[in-house]
Order: sequence, then structure tokens, then C-alpha cells
Amino acid sequence: MSETQTRTVTIAAIAAEAGVSVPTVSRVLNGRSDVAPHTRQRVEALLRSHGYQRRGGRAPEAPKLVDLVFSDLDSPWAVEIIRGVEGAVHAEGAGTVISAIHRRASDARVWLDNLRTRASDGAVLVTSALDPTLESELRELHVPAVVIDPAGVPALDVPTIGATNWAGGVSATEHLLGLGHRRIGYVGGTPSLSCSRARLGGYRAGLAAAGLRVDPELMDEGDFGYESGFAAASRLLALPEPPTAVFAANDQMAMGVYEAVRRRGLRVPEDVSIVGFDDLPAAPWCSPPLTTVHQPLAEMGMVAARTLLRLVRGEPVESPRLELATELVVRDSTAPPPA
Amino acid sequence: MSETQTRTVTIAAIAAEAGVSVPTVSRVLNGRSDVAPHTRQRVEALLRSHGYQRRGGRAPEAPKLVDLVFSDLDSPWAVEIIRGVEGAVHAEGAGTVISAIHRRASDARVWLDNLRTRASDGAVLVTSALDPTLESELRELHVPAVVIDPAGVPALDVPTIGATNWAGGVSATEHLLGLGHRRIGYVGGTPSLSCSRARLGGYRAGLAAAGLRVDPELMDEGDFGYESGFAAASRLLALPEPPTAVFAANDQMAMGVYEAVRRRGLRVPEDVSIVGFDDLPAAPWCSPPLTTVHQPLAEMGMVAARTLLRLVRGEPVESPRLELATELVVRDSTAPPPA
Repeated sequence: MSETQTRTVTIAAIAAEAGVSVPTVSRVLNGRSDVAPHTRQRVEALLRSHGYQRRGGRAPEAPKLVDLVFSDLDSPWAVEIIRGVEGAVHAEGAGTVISAIHRRASDARVWLDNLRTRASDGAVLVTSALDPTLESELRELHVPAVVIDPAGVPALDVPTIGATNWAGGVSATEHLLGLGHRRIGYVGGTPSLSCSRARLGGYRAGLAAAGLRVDPELMDEGDFGYESGFAAASRLLALPEPPTAVFAANDQMAMGVYEAVRRRGLRVPEDVSIVGFDDLPAAPWCSPPLTTVHQPLAEMGMVAARTLLRLVRGEPVESPRLELATELVVRDSTAPPPA
Repeated sequence: MSETQTRTVTIAAIAAEAGVSVPTVSRVLNGRSDVAPHTRQRVEALLRSHGYQRRGGRAPEAPKLVDLVFSDLDSPWAVEIIRGVEGAVHAEGAGTVISAIHRRASDARVWLDNLRTRASDGAVLVTSALDPTLESELRELHVPAVVIDPAGVPALDVPTIGATNWAGGVSATEHLLGLGHRRIGYVGGTPSLSCSRARLGGYRAGLAAAGLRVDPELMDEGDFGYESGFAAASRLLALPEPPTAVFAANDQMAMGVYEAVRRRGLRVPEDVSIVGFDDLPAAPWCSPPLTTVHQPLAEMGMVAARTLLRLVRGEPVESPRLELATELVVRDSTAPPPA
């Protein structure tokens, strides 16, 4: 009997015996939160008593391989997440298989086929836009998944790990206000991503708490890339009354702001203060070193991997969404405004 | 009969039939270059005719998993190499298992155990100091290995992939000479690494070709870290007759040089030109964007993975050492010396 047949028969049998649907058994196997606790307990007890084996004939208790999947591997924060995931998976004696699906359907297809062949125990997905096809296929494979969400994804049917983007936006803005800045420019990220909206919300909330109105003239939009930060800051600095500080919604755009300041013959922080968001490994190497909101990427990877390993072992997950704390790191790119 | 027994019997039988030693068969299996061509052909023919199967019962022709091992995952160039390896391995329908061994013997031990358990087909090692124990254990496992060597390793018993460090050092120095600089400072990398010696050699050769003497006062040594570049450049810039340009042996140290220039109230490139080495993803985000020697890290990863996959399939490898070309990328951190 093939592995596929074994699995199909067993899931159907368990569903019948538990008096639930096959998708409900799948949801229990995948650690989803949308199963009533008593149903979950009954299904888990039956899975155990029948000695249900996942694909590859391995017991769910012994993870051997975990997949870590990026939309793309071109992001400077990728290595931080890899570090966190690899550390947690290695600590359990398992291996981390890394893949980039390049936002191409064909690559996602190949990856899914490979995932099936190598009998991976689960997948950590790092993506700001989870393909619905991918999600439904993962469900078909009965492979537990966790999404790391450095950019902010809408609610998903799998556990997600993120960071406190709104609170980070507030702390960056409060830092600049505390130094005495009143004209604080804002360079936002890709507007469709929820992290962009949260960081912008933090900027607005920080200004509002200080009794300042939000000046649309001082706000511009980028796409999280260096060039867009440079272009937006060039516009802001050319205003008749330019900002004395700029908060960019990520470090790459903040680095573009440095260059816009330099091109105008101005200096950081004497003429213009800059705050970023992410705390990339390169942030302390900016000249002057960048004040930024630290996003704990390695820790997010670690928590995602541990959450996934719990799912693989059939243990419960406390919350479908976890946000790790961001923290302002003050370096040398911020100072009081010029007198 | 266990898999281990099958393997042992077969290798010994093949050695006897070919009239060679067991280590010679291992060398053929591992794609080493130190086997006479006719011996290799005889052993390979016997391996094929006996249908020799590697660990895990898979034929060597169908790679499924390749390990990619870093000493540490804290390097900014790691993600470039990962991208290259993953792309080439993915193209063959196989998966890339990533590990960091943190230069700790215990981690290397766990990794080797895992490699054995998951029946990986081969390993790409990224390391500037290959542990001799690791090397001999890999040989015991009969797993082909390729070393990527962004920092320069002495000759190994496995194929290595590197870059033309010396030529890169020459081109950086010639670029500064061409702009009119005559007092060119040098911040070297960790002196024990062969890439440091090659880049320094390029600097010396560039000066010599221009008829300039090498001034020891203008040379300092770092450890490839940002802080060491900052410290070395601070010393050079404090000289009674400071250099008008600084060539740093990697980008991280070059970024430290920017900060040393800024702290002295000077400007890049108006007062001091800077050239780096590596072309990290962050190099174009320096302010001004960094002129540097591009090391093709993603391509090195790709070539390493393809070389490994050839070894896995039992195909010959042309050369035990491949060096990919470096290339000077001129951006805005270099200009003629101040008048």
C-alpha cells in the first residue's frame, strides 16, 4: 500500500470515528486555532491511538527537516531570520531546508513537489503576500506552517509571528519630538502592506499625543527601497520650509535619506536628523550610525521555528498571532534641530 | 542487511576488483583530483556495473538534499552565497539544508550526525578555516564536499571556489592612481587569511607598477570588522601628512573609514577617497555610494553548488580550484585628490 493511500484512509477513518469532517482532522494536524478544544482533544486522542504517521512514515514526534521559504532572498534582513530559524531547528537536531520561490508560481510548484518528496515536517514561510494557492496546497499536504511577517500580512489561517510596528512608529516619533523637532518628515513604506499602515499610525499617534497636527506636506510614500527613500527625502528637503528630521519606515529608505541630505550639502545630524526602522546589520555602519527601531528578526525566526516544532509534535499553540517587541536604538543620526 | 553493511561490502569489493585500496575508491566517490585518470575510469565503471548505492539507498544520480554549512551566519555576505547555492540546487529539484556550526566542535558534531541521518548528498562549506576533524569526518561519511572561500583557504583536499583577490587589489589601487592620488592608505584584513595577503599583494603591485614606493606609514591592519576599519583610518588621518585616499580590504572596514573621515570634519570624496572590497548589498547605500571591488558571491555559490552536484552524479570536476573574476565598481566615494 502506498504512503498516500495509508494517509488518506487513516485521516478518513479518524474523521468518521471522531464524527467530524476530514478538513477538521486536517485542521487539527495543522495546528489551526479554529477547532473547538473538545473536538481537538478527541481527534488528537484518536490520532495517537491509531498511531497516525505523517508522510514518509515518520512519527510526528521526531522532526528531521523543516522548510524555510522566502518570497525572495534579496532582502538584507533575510540572514537575520535564517539565523534565528536555523538556531532553533538545529537545537532540536533537525535540519533547515531553505528555498526562495521568487514570487513565481512555477517555483512554488517545484518547491511544493520537493517538500512532498523529502517528507519535510513543516514550513516557516517568510512572505508579505502569501499566495492563496500556496496556502491551500500546503493544507492538502497536511504540513504544518507558520508565517513570519516582517512586513505585515492580513489574518491568515496559520500562526503568524510579527513585531510591534505601531509601537515602534510611536517611539521613533517621540524620540524626535523629545529632541525638540516640530517639523518631522515621514517617508512611508509600500502602502498596501499592513506594517506600513501600522508604522504610519505610530507616527500620527506620536504627533497627536504632542498636540501637533499631521502636515500632509511633510509626508511622502516610498516602496521600502533605497531609491524611493532618496527621492522622497529630496522632495521634502526642497520644500520652502523643509523638515528638520525625517522618520523613514525602514532602514534602506533611511539610507536614501542620508544621500539626499548629503546631495543638498547638508549634514546628518547637524542639519537633519534621521530615524529608520528595522536595525539592519548595516545600520551601525552608516555614517553617522543610524538611530532606528530595532525589529528582533532573529528572535522572530526563533519563535517561528519553535512554534512550528510544537505543531509538528502535535502540541498546542497559545496564540494564532504573536508580536515581538520593537525597541528604539539611539545612535548618532539624531540630534536637536538647528537653532 | 543494514545500509552501512551494504556500503562497506560494496566499496571493499569494488576496491578488490579494481585492484586498488578502499581509500582510492573513496577518493573517486568524493571527486578528489588525486586519482590517476585510468584508475578513476576503472573504479567508476565498476561502481556503475555494481549499481553502487550511496547511503539512504538512493542512486548517486538523483540528488535530493545538499547541505550548505557556514562557520557563522553573522556575515553580511552570507545571504548572497545562500542565494547562489539555493538557486542552483533548486534548479536540479533538490533542497538546500542550511547550517551554522559557530566554530564550535559540538555544533559540528551535531551537524555531522544530522548529515548522516538525513542522507544528504553532499556539502558546500563556507569557511575560512576548515576544521581538520570536520574534513576527515566528511571523508569517512563518503559525502562529496566543495568549499567556498570568500576569505581564502590554504589548499584543501576538496574542490574550492574563490575569487581573484590579487587582481581586485590591483584594480582598486590603479583606479586611485588614475585619479591622481599618490598617498594611498591601506587598511588590510586579518593577516592570517590568504585573501588578505592577496589583496595586499595587489595594492603593492599596483603602486610598484606606477613607480611608487610602498610607504609602511600609510599601511595599517584590521580584522575585516567595521570597528577595526574606523580605528585604522583614524590613525592614518591623524598623520602629519595624511593619505588623500584609503583602500580598505573589505566593505565593512571601508564603512568604518567613512566614519573616521566624518569625525575629523572631512568629506568623502572631496577630502578623502575610499575604495572597499566585496560589493556588499549595502555598498550602494553608503553616503556617498561606495566604490568597491565586486566579489561575485552569488555566482561563487552557484558554481560551488554545480560543482558539488557534478561530484554527486559521479561526473569529473575540471579543476580542484576555481577563481571567479572580481570587478571594480566605480560609484561616488572616489574623486581626484584635493588640489
